[in-house]
Order: sequence, then structure tokens, then C-alpha cells
Amino acid sequence: MAKTTKTELVIFKNPHPERDYTITHVNPEFTSVCPVTGLPDFGEITIEYVPDGLCVELKALKYYFLSFRNRGIFYEAVINEILEDMIGALKPRSMTVTGNFSTRGGLHSIVEVGYLKGLDSEPKPSPRVKITMHTKPVAKPVA
Amino acid sequence: MAKTTKTELVIFKNPHPERDYTITHVNPEFTSVCPVTGLPDFGEITIEYVPDGLCVELKALKYYFLSFRNRGIFYEAVINEILEDMIGALKPRSMTVTGNFSTRGGLHSIVEVGYLKGLDSEPKPSPRVKITMHTKPVAKPVA
Amino acid sequence: MAKTTKTELVIFKNPHPERDYTITHVNPEFTSVCPVTGLPDFGEITIEYVPDGLCVELKALKYYFLSFRNRGIFYEAVINEILEDMIGALKPRSMTVTGNFSTRGGLHSIVEVGYLKGLDSEPKPSPRVKITMHTKPVAKPVA
Amino acid sequence: MAKTTKTELVIFKNPHPERDYTITHVNPEFTSVCPVTGLPDFGEITIEYVPDGLCVELKALKYYFLSFRNRGIFYEAVINEILEDMIGALKPRSMTVTGNFSTRGGLHSIVEVGYLKGLDSEPKPSPRVKITMHTKPVAKPVA
Amino acid sequence: MAKTTKTELVIFKNPHPERDYTITHVNPEFTSVCPVTGLPDFGEITIEYVPDGLCVELKALKYYFLSFRNRGIFYEAVINEILEDMIGALKPRSMTVTGNFSTRGGLHSIVEVGYLKGLDSEPKPSPRVKITMHTKPVAKPVA
Amino acid sequence: MAKTTKTELVIFKNPHPERDYTITHVNPEFTSVCPVTGLPDFGEITIEYVPDGLCVELKALKYYFLSFRNRGIFYEAVINEILEDMIGALKPRSMTVTGNFSTRGGLHSIVEVGYLKGLDSEPKPSPRVKITMHTKPVAKPVA
Amino acid sequence: MAKTTKTELVIFKNPHPERDYTITHVNPEFTSVCPVTGLPDFGEITIEYVPDGLCVELKALKYYFLSFRNRGIFYEAVINEILEDMIGALKPRSMTVTGNFSTRGGLHSIVEVGYLKGLDSEPKPSPRVKITMHTKPVAKPVA
Amino acid sequence: MAKTTKTELVIFKNPHPERDYTITHVNPEFTSVCPVTGLPDFGEITIEYVPDGLCVELKALKYYFLSFRNRGIFYEAVINEILEDMIGALKPRSMTVTGNFSTRGGLHSIVEVGYLKGLDSEPKPSPRVKITMHTKPVAKPVA
Amino acid sequence: MAKTTKTELVIFKNPHPERDYTITHVNPEFTSVCPVTGLPDFGEITIEYVPDGLCVELKALKYYFLSFRNRGIFYEAVINEILEDMIGALKPRSMTVTGNFSTRGGLHSIVEVGYLKGLDSEPKPSPRVKITMHTKPVAKPVA
Amino acid sequence: MAKTTKTELVIFKNPHPERDYTITHVNPEFTSVCPVTGLPDFGEITIEYVPDGLCVELKALKYYFLSFRNRGIFYEAVINEILEDMIGALKPRSMTVTGNFSTRGGLHSIVEVGYLKGLDSEPKPSPRVKITMHTKPVAKPVA
Repeated sequence: MAKTTKTELVIFKNPHPERDYTITHVNPEFTSVCPVTGLPDFGEITIEYVPDGLCVELKALKYYFLSFRNRGIFYEAVINEILEDMIGALKPRSMTVTGNFSTRGGLHSIVEVGYLKGLDSEPKPSPRVKITMHTKPVAKPVA
Repeated sequence: MAKTTKTELVIFKNPHPERDYTITHVNPEFTSVCPVTGLPDFGEITIEYVPDGLCVELKALKYYFLSFRNRGIFYEAVINEILEDMIGALKPRSMTVTGNFSTRGGLHSIVEVGYLKGLDSEPKPSPRVKITMHTKPVAKPVA
Repeated sequence: MAKTTKTELVIFKNPHPERDYTITHVNPEFTSVCPVTGLPDFGEITIEYVPDGLCVELKALKYYFLSFRNRGIFYEAVINEILEDMIGALKPRSMTVTGNFSTRGGLHSIVEVGYLKGLDSEPKPSPRVKITMHTKPVAKPVA
Repeated sequence: MAKTTKTELVIFKNPHPERDYTITHVNPEFTSVCPVTGLPDFGEITIEYVPDGLCVELKALKYYFLSFRNRGIFYEAVINEILEDMIGALKPRSMTVTGNFSTRGGLHSIVEVGYLKGLDSEPKPSPRVKITMHTKPVAKPVA
Repeated sequence: MAKTTKTELVIFKNPHPERDYTITHVNPEFTSVCPVTGLPDFGEITIEYVPDGLCVELKALKYYFLSFRNRGIFYEAVINEILEDMIGALKPRSMTVTGNFSTRGGLHSIVEVGYLKGLDSEPKPSPRVKITMHTKPVAKPVA
Repeated sequence: MAKTTKTELVIFKNPHPERDYTITHVNPEFTSVCPVTGLPDFGEITIEYVPDGLCVELKALKYYFLSFRNRGIFYEAVINEILEDMIGALKPRSMTVTGNFSTRGGLHSIVEVGYLKGLDSEPKPSPRVKITMHTKPVAKPVA
Repeated sequence: MAKTTKTELVIFKNPHPERDYTITHVNPEFTSVCPVTGLPDFGEITIEYVPDGLCVELKALKYYFLSFRNRGIFYEAVINEILEDMIGALKPRSMTVTGNFSTRGGLHSIVEVGYLKGLDSEPKPSPRVKITMHTKPVAKPVA
Repeated sequence: MAKTTKTELVIFKNPHPERDYTITHVNPEFTSVCPVTGLPDFGEITIEYVPDGLCVELKALKYYFLSFRNRGIFYEAVINEILEDMIGALKPRSMTVTGNFSTRGGLHSIVEVGYLKGLDSEPKPSPRVKITMHTKPVAKPVA
Repeated sequence: MAKTTKTELVIFKNPHPERDYTITHVNPEFTSVCPVTGLPDFGEITIEYVPDGLCVELKALKYYFLSFRNRGIFYEAVINEILEDMIGALKPRSMTVTGNFSTRGGLHSIVEVGYLKGLDSEPKPSPRVKITMHTKPVAKPVA
Repeated sequence: MAKTTKTELVIFKNPHPERDYTITHVNPEFTSVCPVTGLPDFGEITIEYVPDGLCVELKALKYYFLSFRNRGIFYEAVINEILEDMIGALKPRSMTVTGNFSTRGGLHSIVEVGYLKGLDSEPKPSPRVKITMHTKPVAKPVA
């Protein structure tokens, strides 16, 4: 099973690489499929990182999360795969990925993994993810 | 008294032993029996661990918790026994087990115990627990 | 004034002295009397400790708290006296006692005191407290 | 403007100078006057300290806070002045004073200042504050 | 696009430069415009700093935040620009600026940046910000 | 299956039958067993009634709830059976029984049933419940 | 047992008998003693009424509640007795008395009784309560 | 688009048709797809009904909700279709279906529809839903 | 005592007298002085009304509330006086005034009074309140 | 001032005109400008209606709300104008519009207006709003 969808991560140049700062993106609407029961899992995914040369663009990140919607995958694999894709794409100074999954069989679960540049080995993104540099089209403000 | 039921813990191979990460399972519906009054106790049990070579499977963990339902056992013993069973089964890099028990006689109680591989002695699971390796049957996703 | 009632603390042998773990008992229904105004004070008392050879039994602890109900005593004295009685009775590896008292004259107050074996001097329980070893009568589970 | 009222702080001997412990008093009903607009400010003031030889009495503390009610004074001055008055009166081992002020012009503000005996210079209370030793009149308990 | 409005920061002399203390201003009503979609962004901005010789005046700070209302600017740029303007104007001992932005495309984001005098390089405020010393006009209290 | 335990409800004479008033008892620790899966169900049961000649005693009510602990029974049956037992024992002027059951398979459920004397037919308690008149042994107050 | 203390309710003339309005007093610190176990009960008592010619004074009401502190009395009796004392003292247009009592044996309870002038019979206060007309001594405002 | 999956609703005989009572099932993990954007929608669906001769079985209800997971359907259609399927299957005395959908474009939405037997016309379930009578296989209780 | 300050209520013409609608203003920072103890009282005042020909202006309403800051006045009088001043100034179709006062002596209190045009007699504002028609000076929008 | 932007409301045919149901849209990010101070106002707008033949499309509704961003307009006018635009566009069976505005000068305000077809006169939308019938372009679901 474990249907794997092609997806894309759009990145842009960190506008302030001269100092450390933290960016956190929270997705309270993550859903994938349990590979054992075939039933959907729900959870909140948090990605927190200190960018080095690159940042991740929000709209493509939303579609990246959507690529898990109908995949059969365990909690532990979800969190480690997101970490690897993000580090492969962004090569950040540090990163933490957390998944807070809702109740199944009366139990709920949290999985959290961290990465520190120079200390931990640098993983590669999975081949299903295409990394694209962002060229921002600038819209006119509404008001 | 202290009726002891046979039970089983199903384990599977850690898919990412190459890095440290934290797995937390929370059971807000734990219940056992007070050995002094014979009345039921209620509490929320949290198991947080950094896996080494092995992880615990969720469905069997639910049944493991159920094996306490009609046992007469004190709070302190519950938490230490769960720690010992889990360490015996998983041999994790570290683990914390916490029990947050509901009000009895106007008081409520929390018991928490931690373990760090290499620092603390490695306990054995109680003989009532059978450890089984998981062979995951993969279902078809629903949609 | 300051009426002092005789009371008792029942202790039992720590079932797991081979490792450090934390036991917390919370009493949200503590009440004593203000020695200045003669009016009742209300608060939540929390006792958190790492046991050494001994633990405190819950039912007797409830009666111990009740022995303050009609005593005239200041917040600071309540918390220090509970610490001294508990350390005298349990000789724990460490202990913290906290009192979170409800609003009086528009102000509310918190008093917290800690103890670490070997670092702080070991206080004695007040003579009004009798220390008794627990012999547990075991009831039949209800269901 | 900045009308300054005379006020008094009543102190009493620390009943347990033999050990470090923390006393916190919270006043959620603090009000003073903005010296720029002449309009009232509202906030919650928290005083947390480790007493040395002296403690502050609650009823006089309430009146001390009231002495700010119609004074024109900035947030930063309120918090530093309370710290100085309290250290001058109590000479504590350490102290933190925090003011959490309610929304003005869509913004709300927090000001916090700390003091550690031996490390920071010891400020003097303002001349408007009279320090008085408490002689506790003991009332009869009500029940 | 990225319409840049001239604005002003009013500063005043720190009344207590003799000790370290923390001042926090929170603006839960920050809004700017997304430069990609042209749609408004909303968020809560928090500025926390230890003043050295200077503090920022609240009323002008409100107008400073308003100068972002119709600008097209990314989250990362908002937070770094506020940090740079504030450090340029106040030259504080330390500072943290945090932006907690509301949900867009199902994701919400937090950006946080810190500064420590002597450790980090001292940025300049953007040329659009005029720095003015405050001369406080003192009003009569209302009551 | 559906193991049925004998149990008892202790009643006492309503001390104020001359006026209508409402008594509500809430049990947040109700548990029974799902007759389909054999797994435990958890919920909060609320009994609200206007007594006529009789009230239910709290301690026996606790044991009555315990008699469901190991019974296999559906939500709908639990709530209707409690209503019938209570009306049979108390013959109240009116009564509502509500069960708020915790998450199973991602869904949680509420079942509520009401009764109004004279309007609804008067059900009989199940034969497993013995009704006993309370003779209150009066203890000495503790303080 | 059931120790009955003499107490007093101070009343004053309703300043606005020309219109209906509602006055609610909430006491979150009510405590009495269970006549069966001799152990203390805790609860929050709410008195809501539409005054006719008379109102109840707050300070005496506090002492009235204190008169229950060491009395052995059931929940149902507490609420009905407070209703009767209040109606006897105030002869209000309507009144509701509610007691929300904290957990005993895993259950918590609410008792509520209402009164409507002209519809319900007018009860008498218990002989232990003395009714006194208030003559207000007027203090100088603090600021 | 609007992919329509076959699904099934399992019903069982109401064990207590002799009285009115209310059954509520809440699904906080509902998800479908927006037919305009192709992006997923998330929401909490609540079904509240007074059964007549039939009740809906929980496990099949979970699968019924899952049948919307990859369908393109508007909020208004979701809620009306669920109402029609449920009334067609259960023919209840009354029913309310509510959908509380999460934020899209800064707005969140609630859709609610009610039905009262005899007053409203009785809708038919959509042909994609098969109605099956439940034959309950009874498991052994765990403890 | 009871110092009475002159104050002003600014009104403007209801822009939509052709239909009923409700306007609510909430002041969580109300403070006055207890005429018995001379100590400050704190509370949240809510004014809810259906305008007829006139509305109350917010800035003047703020100053009107400030006129109570140092007055000695009971809760009951505060709420009735605000009702009378508002009805006198606005002659609304209906109005409710509520005061939710913070804890004094362990009790907190709520006072609420309502008015319905045509049903209740129309009170006059107190002579201390000057009623002024608003002439709105229109500022330039900031952005 | 009062800059008025042209805007558009997109409507679509009610898919279920055969029964009454309620649709609620909540916008927690509404902002306009105060015509007196020129400063921005913030609030949460809720539109609740029972559709007749027409519903409002969400994306255009978002842009409709945006058209207020830089307009100078009072709270009362905002709420009445939204009601009139919506009734003019949708001709619903009933509608309620509520604005919950954030703190200004220490006060926060709520304005609410209702409409019932046949009972209230039917207002016209303001000429600045263009009403357009929706033709839904159907996208492919993502997963």
C-alpha cells in the first residue's frame, strides 16, 4: 500500500541570514492513513527552525502536508520523514518537528524529533519531493 | 488479593534508530483497584521514551493497560511496574512514566519515575508480560 | 489561642527504594484560621517528594490536614510546619511544600519551601504528630 | 502633579530564618494614574521574595498599594519604587516585582525587576513610607 | 508595491538605568499586507527588552505599529525590521521580538528574533523611522 | 455475557417535601464494558431530580455505579436502566439522567432521558437492585 | 452532634424598592461537616434574589456562612435552611439558593431551591438567627 | 468531480421506544474536499436525535463519515445530505445535524438543520447509502 | 462622605432608529469606594440597550465611569444610578445594567437591573450629570 | 473622509430551499477605521441567516469584509450596513448580524441587529455593492 504522491517544497532566500531567529509553522489539520487499519489519523504538526540561507514558502508547505492525506504511514515515520525533507530542502541551523496525534483506542500520542547542524548527520529529502526556488510575484495590496 | 492477569506487549523495530527522538503515549482512561478499600482508582498514565532499537505497538499497549483494570495495586507500584515492563520490553535510551490520579478523600496524587540508559540499572519486566515481535499486516486505505 | 490538636502520620515502606521517583499529593481543600482576625483561611497545599525508605499513607494524610482546620496559624508557619512534620516522618531524599492561599483583602499569596537531604539540616516533626507504621489491611476488589 | 501620599509598611520577624523559602503576594486590583493623560491605569502586581530576617504584613501591604491609587506615575517607576520600598523595609535574600498592566491604546505591558542580595546594590525605601514593626494582636477563632 | 510610510519612535530616558529590568509591550492588533496575495495578515507582536539609557514611549509605539497597516511585507521581514528599528532607537541591553500570526491556508506561524548587546552586531533603524526625545506634558489626574 | 451484579440503593426521607428543589449528582468516573468489543467504556453520568418523599444516599449510589464496572451493556441501555432504577427507588417529581461518553473510533456520544411524574409511565427498578431505607449513624465532627 | 451556633443577619432598607432588580452573592469558600462521617464538606453557595423592602449586608452574611463551619448537616438541609433564613430575614420578591459541593467518593453534587413570593409559602428563619437592622457607619474614602 | 463512494448505515432496534430520549454523536474529525478549490475542509459534525423504532450503530457511522473524505462537496450540501441519510435510515421523532467548519480565508462557518416528525416532510437517504439491520455479535468482557 | 463629582454624558442621534438593535458597552475597569470601610471596590459594568432616538458616545462614557472612582457608594446604588442616568440621557426602548463585583471578605456579588419603555416608569438622571449633544469632529484615517 | 470602496457579493442558489436551516459565517479579523480618531478598530463579525432562495459565497464575502479596512465608520453603522447589504443580496427568511469590538479606552462593545422576513421592512444594499450570481468552477480534489 503506502501510496506515495509526488510533491514540491518551494524555498526562498533567508532575508536575514546575518542573525539567528526562529520560524515556527503549525498545521492543526494534518491527516494521513494508518497502514494497519486503513483508517485515517489526525494530528497537529509543528515545524520550528532557525534558518541558515533558506526559508520554506507557506503555500507550497500546505500542499506538501496534503501529500500525506491518503498515504498509509506510521506516526514515527511521518515525523522523521518531514524532518528529513525539510533539512534536505532548507539545510537549517537547527530544527524540531513535532506531531501531536488525536485519540486512537483511548490513547493519544506525541512524536518529536530534533536536529542541530554540525552535531547531527544531515539527512536527504525523499525522492518524491521536488525542491523549487521561489520567485515571488508581488500582488497589489487590497485596500 | 492483587489478582494478576497475564498480558502481552507487542514491539516493532524502531524505523529511525540513527537519531534520538521522543515518543509519548497518553492514556487518560487508566483504572485499577485500591488494595486497601477495594474501590476503583482512576488516572492518566503518560509514557515518554527515546527508543533505541525497539518501539511499542499501540493496540497491544491498550490491552496491557487493561490488564490493570481489576488488579488491587497502589499508585507507587503501578508506575514502577509499568516502567519496569516497558524498559524490559523496549530497552530504550531513556523513559519517564507518570500517573496523574484523580481525587480520593479530597486529595489527588501524581507519581513520576524516570530512567536513563547507562546511568540507572536495567529492570526486568514482570513475568506476567509476554513480549512479542510485531509483523504488521497492512490494510488498504479507506478512500 | 492557636489551638493545637494531636494528630498522626501513617507511613509505609517505600516499595521501590532502588530508584528515585517523585510522589506529589495535592489538597485543594486546606483550611485553617487567621490568628489575627480569627477568620478562616483557605488554600491548596501541595507536597512533592522523592521518597527514601518511607512513604506517607493517604488517608492519614487527610486527617493530618484536618488537624489545622480550627488552629490559628499564619501562612508562613503552616508551610514550614508541614515541611518539618513530613521530613521528620519520612526522611525523604528531597521535598517541596507549597501553599496557594485564596484572596484576603484583595491579595492572594503563595508560600513555598524546599528541602534537599544532605544539603539542608533535617528538621524534627512537632510533638503533636504521632508517627505510625502502616500495616495494610487488604480488602477484596469490588467487581 | 504626581501627588505623593504618606504610607506605612508593617513588618514582622521571619518565623523560619533558618531556611530559604519563597513568599509571593499578588494584587490583581492595582490602580494608579497615568501622568501624561491623567487617566487611571490598572494592573496586577506580584511581589515574590525569599525573606531574611523580616516578612511584610498583608493588611498594611494592601494599604501600601492603595497609596498609589491617585498618584500620577509611569509603569516603570511603579515597579522600581515598589522594589526599592520592599527591599528597604525587608532586606530580603532575593526579590522580584512584576506589573502586568491592562490594555492602553491597544497595547498591554509587563514590567519586571529582580534583586539578589550581595549581587545588587541595596536600595532605600522612599521617604514617604514609614516602616513599623508588627505586634500581633491575637483574635479568637470564629468557630 | 511594499508601500513604506514615514513614522516616528518617541523615546525617553530610562528612570532606573542603575539596575537591569525587563519591559514588555504586547500588540494583539497588528496587521500588515501579504506581498504575494495582497490580502491582510493579522498577528500579535511582543517586544521584550532590558533598557539601557532609553525607553520607548507607548503612544508613539502604537503609531509605529500602524505604519505597517497597508505595507506589503513578509512575516520574517516584519519581525527583523521591528528588531532593527527598536535597537537603533533604544540601544537596549537585550531584546526579543516575537510575532504570532493567525491562520493562513490552515497554517499559523510564529517568528522570533533575539539580540544581546556586545554579542550581536548593532543594527540601524530603517531610514523611514524618525527618533524623537520625549518631553512629557503632565496632565492633572482625573479624580 | 452481560454479567449482572446484585446491588443496593439506600434512600432516606426528603427533609423538605413541602417545596420543590433540585438535587444533582455527577459521577465523572463511570465505566462499563462494550458488549460488542468487550472493551471498557468511560463516561460521566449525571442524575438530576426533584425529590418527592425520598432522596438517594451518596455512598450507596457510588456502589450502585460500581455495579456496572464489568457489565457488558450499551450506552442507551445504561441510561435507561439508571432512570428506571432511580424512579423505582425514589418516585421523584421529575428526573433527568445524562451520560457523556468518551471517544470511541473518533466519535463521542451523549445520551439523555427525562421523566415527569404524572406525564410519563412510572418504570420499575430492575430486580438486581435492592432498595433499603437509610438509618443514619451520626459521627462526631472532626475538629 | 449537629452543633448549632447562634448567628446574626444584618439587613438594610432596599434603596430602590420602586423597581425589580437582582442581587447575587457567591461564597466559593463554604464549609460544613458531614453528619455521617464527621469529615468536612466544601462547596460554593450562591444566593440570588429580587429584594422587596430589604437587602442583606455583606459582612454579616460572611459571618452567617461561618456559623456552618463546624455544624454536622446534610447538603439538602444546608440549602433549605439558608433559603428559609434569608426569606425570613428579607421577605424578597423571589430567591434562588444553590450549593455546588466538591467531590466525595468520586461524586459531586448540586442542590438548588427557589422561592417566588405569593406562590410559595413564606418560611420562617431558624431561631438560631438574630435579624438586625443595619445603621451604616460611614468611613472616609482612602484616597 | 464530486466522487461519490458507496457506503452503509447499520441500524438496530431502539431498546426503549416506550419513552422519548436524546442520543447525540459528535465527530470532531470530519473532512471532505472543497469542490471549488479542491482543497480539504475540516469540521466537527454533531447528530442529535430522539429515536423512534431505530438507532444508528457507531462503528458503521464512523465509516459513513469516512465516505465523505475524498468527495468534493459544499458545507450546505454536507449537512443536508447527512440529515436526509439519517432520517431515511432511522425515521426518528426529531433530529438536528450541525457542522462547525474550521477557518478558510479567515472565516469559519457553522451550518445547522433540524427535523421534526409530522411537521417536516420525510426525506429519502441518497441511493449511495445501503441500510443494514444490526445483528450484534457479543464479545467477552476483558477483565 | 460620598463625594459627588460633576460629570457629562455625550449623546448622538441613532443612525438607524427604523429598526431595533442592541448596543452593549462593557467596562472591566470600574472602581468606586465602599462607604462603610472606605476601601476601593472593583467590578465590571455592562450596559446593554436598544436605542430609540439617541446613542451614548464612548469617550464621554469612559469619563462618566471615572466620576465614580473616589465616590463612596454601595453596589446596589451604583447600578441603579447608572440605569437612571442612562435612561434619562438616552430614553432607550429597553436597557439592562449589570455590575459584577470582585471578591470582598471571600464573597463576590452581581447586581443587575432592567428597564422596558412603556412598562417601567422613566427615571431622571442625577443632577450631577450634564447631557450634551455630540458634534463629531472627523479625523483623517491613519493609513 | 469615510472613504467608500466599491465591492461585490457573490451569491449562489440555495441547494435546499425546501427546508429551514441556519448558516453562520464568523470573521474574527474584521477591521475598519474610527471616523473620530482616525485610528483602526478591530472586531469579530458574525452573520447568521436562514436562507430562502440564495446563499452567499465565502470567498467574495471575505473581500466584502476587506472593503471596510480603510473606511471611517462607527460600530453602529458597520453592523446596520452589513445587515442591509446582506438582506438586499440574499433576501433571507431571517438574519442576525453581530459585531464584537475590541477594547477602546478601557471599554469593549457589542452591537447586534436582527431581521425577520415579513415582520421587518426589507432594506436595500448600499449602491457600492455589486451582486453577482456564482457559476462554480469545479476543481479536481487534491488527493
